[in-house]
Amino acid sequence: MSIVQNLSLTALKARYRRGDYSPTAMVRDLFATIRQCPDEYIWTTLLDEETCLSAAAELEKHGDAAHLPLFGIPFSVKDNIDTAGINTSCSCDAFQRMPDNNAEVVQRAIDAGAILIGKNSLDQFATGLSGTRVVKPHCKNPFKDAVIPGGSSSGSGVAVARGLVTFAIGTDTGGSGRIPAAMNNIVGIKPTLGTLSDNGVVHNSRFLDTTSVFAQTVAEGQMIYAVLQDPGSTVNRLHSDPLTRGDQFNFCAPDLNQLDFFGDKQAEKAFAAAISTLESIGGTGHTIDLQVFAAARSMPFDSGLLAERHFNYGSVLASGDEALHPALKSTLQKAAGYSRDDLISALYRMKDLRASAHKQLGGMDCLVLPTVARSFTCDEIKQDPVTNNHKIGHYTYFVNPLDLCAVAVPAAIKPDGVPFGISLIGLPGTDATVQSIGRRFQDAVELKPGIDAISI
Amino acid sequence: MSIVQNLSLTALKARYRRGDYSPTAMVRDLFATIRQCPDEYIWTTLLDEETCLSAAAELEKHGDAAHLPLFGIPFSVKDNIDTAGINTSCSCDAFQRMPDNNAEVVQRAIDAGAILIGKNSLDQFATGLSGTRVVKPHCKNPFKDAVIPGGSSSGSGVAVARGLVTFAIGTDTGGSGRIPAAMNNIVGIKPTLGTLSDNGVVHNSRFLDTTSVFAQTVAEGQMIYAVLQDPGSTVNRLHSDPLTRGDQFNFCAPDLNQLDFFGDKQAEKAFAAAISTLESIGGTGHTIDLQVFAAARSMPFDSGLLAERHFNYGSVLASGDEALHPALKSTLQKAAGYSRDDLISALYRMKDLRASAHKQLGGMDCLVLPTVARSFTCDEIKQDPVTNNHKIGHYTYFVNPLDLCAVAVPAAIKPDGVPFGISLIGLPGTDATVQSIGRRFQDAVELKPGIDAISI
Repeated sequence: MSIVQNLSLTALKARYRRGDYSPTAMVRDLFATIRQCPDEYIWTTLLDEETCLSAAAELEKHGDAAHLPLFGIPFSVKDNIDTAGINTSCSCDAFQRMPDNNAEVVQRAIDAGAILIGKNSLDQFATGLSGTRVVKPHCKNPFKDAVIPGGSSSGSGVAVARGLVTFAIGTDTGGSGRIPAAMNNIVGIKPTLGTLSDNGVVHNSRFLDTTSVFAQTVAEGQMIYAVLQDPGSTVNRLHSDPLTRGDQFNFCAPDLNQLDFFGDKQAEKAFAAAISTLESIGGTGHTIDLQVFAAARSMPFDSGLLAERHFNYGSVLASGDEALHPALKSTLQKAAGYSRDDLISALYRMKDLRASAHKQLGGMDCLVLPTVARSFTCDEIKQDPVTNNHKIGHYTYFVNPLDLCAVAVPAAIKPDGVPFGISLIGLPGTDATVQSIGRRFQDAVELKPGIDAISI
Repeated sequence: MSIVQNLSLTALKARYRRGDYSPTAMVRDLFATIRQCPDEYIWTTLLDEETCLSAAAELEKHGDAAHLPLFGIPFSVKDNIDTAGINTSCSCDAFQRMPDNNAEVVQRAIDAGAILIGKNSLDQFATGLSGTRVVKPHCKNPFKDAVIPGGSSSGSGVAVARGLVTFAIGTDTGGSGRIPAAMNNIVGIKPTLGTLSDNGVVHNSRFLDTTSVFAQTVAEGQMIYAVLQDPGSTVNRLHSDPLTRGDQFNFCAPDLNQLDFFGDKQAEKAFAAAISTLESIGGTGHTIDLQVFAAARSMPFDSGLLAERHFNYGSVLASGDEALHPALKSTLQKAAGYSRDDLISALYRMKDLRASAHKQLGGMDCLVLPTVARSFTCDEIKQDPVTNNHKIGHYTYFVNPLDLCAVAVPAAIKPDGVPFGISLIGLPGTDATVQSIGRRFQDAVELKPGIDAISI
């Protein structure tokens, strides 16, 4: 069995149920793999093997593979989400938060039998989309060292792609839960705002942040998402029906003249192929004008909403330059400059844009876009850290301002060896529908998840 | 036929369909009634009869009673909502806004065949709950001159109660769409935030304001609400099922020690009777702790959210004291003092309280409370305009901060001759459920609507 498939949720569950494998054996095998992994910067905190073995033993004593949906499943958590007794660092040594409790979503995973392996690195405070906005060395894209791992949930994406965990819990403000999925050939579930609890998360914006899930496949992501969901949430109560019209569905995509791949011809080709695949599985394509969506694009980084970042962790500005990435510092300085009325204007504008976008998407099962238009190198980001960061988020930024849900699905490994993925984006509450289309798309593409796609 | 019943939606529709009455005849009869009405302060702008006759003639030429759901139905609009070509005054001469277009919700009514009769007075800028926060004389409670008409949609409530319009469109931030219903023995539909468009409304808070409907009965309110709804709204798309479990439902109410009637023993008795009526129609009562709800009570008037009022119409502060009610002036001055971080704190606190309240209401079909605890006199409000205003909103203030829907239903005329009503409050999206319970409650109570309850 290949390195990634070895940790697939379905495979692990089947082995546990057959009784020919145990959480203890899994932890031992897993730490052997982790020790061989050349990239230590995936982790901000890696639990020690003994701790994980204790958790496994406890589970074997009291747990039950048949009843606990995540029995013995290893997972990791982006380090802007609290795990009890482990410092929440946000990849910034100047920020210290020692939580007594697990974030609600982490506790749900553990209660369902999952075993926490560690905390994953991220662009400092989840403000960045490349995975390189850190002061220490950043984790590496496992497909190509020179290419960005994608952020801000960089360590989470790489950990799943390398088969070091079965799933990872991340966050998504402007694309952080989808871009690392696209860059690492895995799936990113970016649910409707409010369906996963945000209790215990260090926030960028409580109007935009979504807790998210990285997994190898949409099918596995769906199972994990179902376990992590907050049953008391209104959005969950008001859930929509999944796609139930048999094989047929309606999707929309912009005209070619509204699409920009920033010169990546291979990505453009891969996107066209993905559209054909969607048609081949029963999708009818429609054209959509992206103007309203484009108007919401700058909201996460260039509107009064930025004031929230200063409100939430602006205190780190006082901690001196060594601890802060220059791009984070300038973001926080910009954030400090927004007034009360700037914030009100931004919130009102967001409300109006949401209404327009929702009307435009009426009757569509999903909007289809590239997740990342072009695979940037780490050097390109270093040379122009702001403009190029915006280009990475070109197709992801507006999703949360417009209160939409999304799933990022692998579509191809391009001839240059870098993964390419698409996003299926839907109205709030239609998570089941977009996930169902994503699942069928992934089945049709027949690409192995994570680094297995290029393993021989 | 009594004065109010004469304008009931059902009665008018039946007469039009039978062909023994016409919109033109209705307008003539209506203006005869309006001319006899002793209270001119119900209106900020009353259209002239000729204008309404033209609308009626137009309708008779091109309209169709069988297909237009509001064919020939007279209605009025609270004067903080735009109607094309009529100044939107917010009951304040210093504020001038001449709209070219009807607010979306007004346009929907007109498109459905309704005939606009005029604009209704309100507490200036909808900041008040008594109906007396105006500089000119205020409209009068038709049951008892000395008692408040209820606000802020005072003119709208009185117009429906007196049978001058079939329905009125209002707004509700802290109770403005429910309190005038309770004080005037009519129904107030306070829908889930976002189900009726707020386009063309002068806002207090875009996080709290709801467009609302006043009608004689819940059944008629439901029909009107259905016509006015924004079909593109996400909340409408994610609507819940109406109550379909036959006659049984679960309601909750606080223990007596958490209820305060501010000394009105008659109101306390009327509330107990209403609870018995709910049990008699299939309701099972449960006890609920109101702490979380009470914590959200002060948000509309004592939190950073107040900053929005300054943002939206703070410019009137410059216009001099004659035009502004002192309570409005002090509210706006207080609003100006809230900082950006005060606003963020308030919005975050609101989000947390919403989550807690929604969890607490899980499994309940509705929360039952008095709409207004005690009938205050206009003199009492004059003597202590702030504290007594808060007491009026004691059971209404928290509904919008907690993102709940409600329907205010008449319950009794107290021995002192003043109406008493209850509110059925539900989770967002459960409008159909609370309205269905409200409808059955109103049927069981057998009280004629508006002033017909006391006409011989």
